[in-house]
Amino acid sequence: MIKKVLIANRGEIAVRIIRACREMGIETVAVYSEADREALHTQLADEAVCIGPAPSTESYLNMEQIISATIVSGADAIHPGFGFLSENSKFAELCAQCNIIFIGPDAEVIRRLGHKSQARNTMIEAGVPVIPGSKEPIYDARTGAEIAAQTGYPVIVKAALGGGGKGMRVARTPEEFEAAFQTAQKETKAAFGDDTMYIEHFVEHPKHIEFQILADKYGNVIHLGERDCSIQRNHQKMIEESPCTVISEELRQAMGDAAVKAAKAAHYENAGTIEFLLEKSGNFYFMEMNTRIQVEHPVTEWVTGIDLIKEQIRIADGRELSYKQEDVQLTGHAIECRINAENPAKGFRPCPGTITDMYLPGGKGVRIDSAIYSGYTVPPYYDNMLAKLIVFAKNRTEAIMKMRSALGEVIIEGIDTNVDYQYEILNHPDYQAGNFDIEFIADKEQELLVGGDNVEII
Amino acid sequence: MIKKVLIANRGEIAVRIIRACREMGIETVAVYSEADREALHTQLADEAVCIGPAPSTESYLNMEQIISATIVSGADAIHPGFGFLSENSKFAELCAQCNIIFIGPDAEVIRRLGHKSQARNTMIEAGVPVIPGSKEPIYDARTGAEIAAQTGYPVIVKAALGGGGKGMRVARTPEEFEAAFQTAQKETKAAFGDDTMYIEHFVEHPKHIEFQILADKYGNVIHLGERDCSIQRNHQKMIEESPCTVISEELRQAMGDAAVKAAKAAHYENAGTIEFLLEKSGNFYFMEMNTRIQVEHPVTEWVTGIDLIKEQIRIADGRELSYKQEDVQLTGHAIECRINAENPAKGFRPCPGTITDMYLPGGKGVRIDSAIYSGYTVPPYYDNMLAKLIVFAKNRTEAIMKMRSALGEVIIEGIDTNVDYQYEILNHPDYQAGNFDIEFIADKEQELLVGGDNVEII
Repeated sequence: MIKKVLIANRGEIAVRIIRACREMGIETVAVYSEADREALHTQLADEAVCIGPAPSTESYLNMEQIISATIVSGADAIHPGFGFLSENSKFAELCAQCNIIFIGPDAEVIRRLGHKSQARNTMIEAGVPVIPGSKEPIYDARTGAEIAAQTGYPVIVKAALGGGGKGMRVARTPEEFEAAFQTAQKETKAAFGDDTMYIEHFVEHPKHIEFQILADKYGNVIHLGERDCSIQRNHQKMIEESPCTVISEELRQAMGDAAVKAAKAAHYENAGTIEFLLEKSGNFYFMEMNTRIQVEHPVTEWVTGIDLIKEQIRIADGRELSYKQEDVQLTGHAIECRINAENPAKGFRPCPGTITDMYLPGGKGVRIDSAIYSGYTVPPYYDNMLAKLIVFAKNRTEAIMKMRSALGEVIIEGIDTNVDYQYEILNHPDYQAGNFDIEFIADKEQELLVGGDNVEII
Repeated sequence: MIKKVLIANRGEIAVRIIRACREMGIETVAVYSEADREALHTQLADEAVCIGPAPSTESYLNMEQIISATIVSGADAIHPGFGFLSENSKFAELCAQCNIIFIGPDAEVIRRLGHKSQARNTMIEAGVPVIPGSKEPIYDARTGAEIAAQTGYPVIVKAALGGGGKGMRVARTPEEFEAAFQTAQKETKAAFGDDTMYIEHFVEHPKHIEFQILADKYGNVIHLGERDCSIQRNHQKMIEESPCTVISEELRQAMGDAAVKAAKAAHYENAGTIEFLLEKSGNFYFMEMNTRIQVEHPVTEWVTGIDLIKEQIRIADGRELSYKQEDVQLTGHAIECRINAENPAKGFRPCPGTITDMYLPGGKGVRIDSAIYSGYTVPPYYDNMLAKLIVFAKNRTEAIMKMRSALGEVIIEGIDTNVDYQYEILNHPDYQAGNFDIEFIADKEQELLVGGDNVEII
């Protein structure tokens, strides 16, 4: 039985995990960098251990320090949250070697699914639909161009490692290919210290649809329906919702079956997410599997009623899933807006600084996951997400009305945020009609910045 | 169609109603006293009208001022919230005369149900179980003693008007009767300017169980299950939950049927609450009907998924109920703790003042209904409730764990609160075992104040 968990993360996800542990009667150990002495996660945990200076490489990515803190504090398990070491197979391996439970899948599973071409091959073998593309890693532009010609333009060049939009470029014609490849590979090298690339057919104007799955140690795998995460800017999600308006019950079952098949093929264990691209035709393609909890997990929690963090801990503790597939019912509609410290009018430039005054909404159907408070100084070293505002209502129209109302109540003074920008998205007739894909923000960036012109009361 | 609502209230319930209206696309008008210029409801509404000086009689109870504000602002309807004018039949009548929709039942229905002996007679005629007691109003101790002898000791003497524990006394023996009657009647005169009393059999150690009902203009009446409001101090509720642990499905159906029968007998319309006393034997008795929304409505909202304020507005707007009885399912468990500005160690003395720093919890299954913010000054003129902390989980044990965790996160500095006291109740083995009745606080007041000794992890 897990009795004490060290949370190898910071910010709202560390707070989220601390809360789940407390509710399960499990003790918590926070780790913090020197910049995070006053952070909420540091204050909320039963114990807190400083693991080094502000830069992540010296603290939240410092495996040895985190393992030491775990051993010294007597924690049985580590929850990695998302980002940082959460998808680092070496870290999972190190935990196993030190007899520490890593709350997530096996190191080998992380490694295999983290390597895009290996993940893709696993899916092809399992019969999960993938986008036509290169079967082997590509290291040079000439080989790439040959593969691109076979795959069919437009194509996208991607880094085998990494994510978050880094090391990705689209080439619409053979003429554009070489420059696209070189730029992507250069970025890949800089970001991940690796130059392995791959190429695939570029699916135009798809929706980003992901399926949440849960898998225990005994081969039981269930899916918890989808999240529509198409509202993105530079591959960074801004708004997520569940269910997706354009997915029929039939399509949900087909995609859910594929997600479960994918997890089983990977011998997956714990919570995971299978990301798909969904074309207007209804064709869907496996994109990647995230081997950790996602930022947007609350929307699934609200429509299913299932606490994903508690399930993660239970699974890591060797227990069977609490739910069978037939227990999972999607009820109502949930939307999440990520509130970031950034200035949309200035190219979404991050705006760390001190929050001089703050008011966050509450009431029926409103959930806030955050780690900020009045007087808190947002450090410049980390992700600029301040809070997740999640709403739930019986249908999408009411959920949109609720989110608009809730966004209208948010007060965060002292730093710039994207709250008004989010409000404009919620007000946009195309968003309200469910008529959007992953290009929504790119297509309407200026229109959304101007604001006000397309206000429509639904 | 209601297009604009004036909210004749303040504090968290005014905020609650403003939010519901905004989500329905309805404009809002707040009214505020001079002491409430900086109040949240004043800031959140689309418009705000000052209606007079701080004392309630000169502002929130000033019918003429409120009606004027309604007419001047062009509002179609008034939502009275709870307290203040919410159960004042004259005010409802005045609204009707001015062609303003009063969001609540008819003036005549309010009047009849507000008069305890009339309400009781209505219930007796409808076949709803009532506590044996006086059929007619009683004005003198001698008549009272005769009735008490018929009813059977112990008996309770009560004011025909009023509530909140004022004008109530228990007599356990005939010898105690006269003094009890005189004291109760004296208090009644002072509080309500009326000396009408009644007497009934005193039910010992019951639970306070209330049923939420909804009734439209077309005779449709449904109930939304029960709330256990037994955790009270001096007849003031402190913790409410739904469902009640000791109510079987069979008893729920019997009590729910009685509640629906009661509402139908009263020709009731809009949201209302039927309060029962539940004996250990399973016998239950009608106590009174509250003809307004209750403080504790969120626990019912969470276990049923139904937005009660929106339903109130829809009903007042002449629409049929959105739900049939068979649509209402109680799922999971919800608990509400009232966070008050008071000092439990000093006899729960109210503690108005300025909130110098504040942090309220959030996350999965946590709802905050409040009107406070960091820097807000709690005025001394009104009720001392600062916030309602409501939690929801799949069962009672998890809900208790969540509430303990959430209470542990609350920071309200600058004024005293009952947060630690609430935490002690949640920690008490009898509370955790569901083994409590309306005497819980009275029986354990000192034990709860000391704290810490009876901590038990469930």
